[in-house]
Amino acid sequence: METIDSVKRLKESFKKLPGVGEKTAERMAYATLNFSEKEIQEFIASLDNVLKNVHVCPNCGIYIDTAFCPICDDVSRDTDVLLVVTEAKSVISFERTGKYHGKYFVLGGSLSPIKGIDPKKIRIPELRQRVIDDNIKEVILACNSTIEGETTSSFIKRYLDDTDAKVTRLAYGLPVGADLEYVDELTIERSLNARTIYKGE
Amino acid sequence: METIDSVKRLKESFKKLPGVGEKTAERMAYATLNFSEKEIQEFIASLDNVLKNVHVCPNCGIYIDTAFCPICDDVSRDTDVLLVVTEAKSVISFERTGKYHGKYFVLGGSLSPIKGIDPKKIRIPELRQRVIDDNIKEVILACNSTIEGETTSSFIKRYLDDTDAKVTRLAYGLPVGADLEYVDELTIERSLNARTIYKGE
Repeated sequence: METIDSVKRLKESFKKLPGVGEKTAERMAYATLNFSEKEIQEFIASLDNVLKNVHVCPNCGIYIDTAFCPICDDVSRDTDVLLVVTEAKSVISFERTGKYHGKYFVLGGSLSPIKGIDPKKIRIPELRQRVIDDNIKEVILACNSTIEGETTSSFIKRYLDDTDAKVTRLAYGLPVGADLEYVDELTIERSLNARTIYKGE
Repeated sequence: METIDSVKRLKESFKKLPGVGEKTAERMAYATLNFSEKEIQEFIASLDNVLKNVHVCPNCGIYIDTAFCPICDDVSRDTDVLLVVTEAKSVISFERTGKYHGKYFVLGGSLSPIKGIDPKKIRIPELRQRVIDDNIKEVILACNSTIEGETTSSFIKRYLDDTDAKVTRLAYGLPVGADLEYVDELTIERSLNARTIYKGE
């Protein structure tokens, strides 16, 4: 006797999740068999809800499940600062700090010629249009500090060269609470280059 | 802005899976938003299929999604040997060896007074009835080698004391391919006690 087809089928869906391989997916599928009927129904309903109600805000690109966008339609936010992130979920990280009051723009990916991701796919022309239309004063780049993220940042900088917007990027440096022993050399080098004055000028 | 409700809701379902905590569940929920519509529909359909078609064989307790049970309804299998396992998925492990040709009995759990799992909950009276009705000659106990598994094994042994069935259990010993350095002391002690003759009598 082999694993039954119903389990094999469910396993394939779990395997699509990040960090889930063959064995983990099988374990999850079997665990689901032990869910109560109500729990499976809720699982289905929550997936169905994602399908029916979650969509991307056409303006900023974050995931929303309401008719209005909590960022774009918030009149109390600064309209002339735009923070550019790669993924929609990064917006949550900035919102958690409670220290950013401008708007967002989600690219939805990083430039990658190998994966066939070109500027149009990550809405860079739309970003430029938005910067011009909304008369943005500052574009803050918050791409990942990977090679692809760096490429994307530098491409956007050049692409916005003839607009009036100032383009800034997040500071590199030591993570708060970091033990120097465990920080990589490149981060140390960058935090040294970008050192700030502590006393004197 | 906080995580949207649709994501929070889906996260709760992922959190019920084994080995998935708060952070992983959130990551999975966001990853699901990136699934294509077709992928989410297939995920829903596979869960729905589990709900509608997967059931427990009333005789042996394994999960099946067909009208017949591939174990109980297999006439080529020995009918007088019964292998007792805690979880349905363990059956697959034994089947994979291709070396066991008897029937199975799934308890569905281990005895645990703390968790309120008593002999009735894990169908021990049904096991006894089956042993008597089917005139079982040998009951092979394959419970986990945890404290709860051991308790369950010893309870079953006593519970079947007045039947004609012989009760055996899986051998303890070194796992195949194990390096002695990494094997725990209790396993070494048990493999020493249960040593087998290699030469001479």
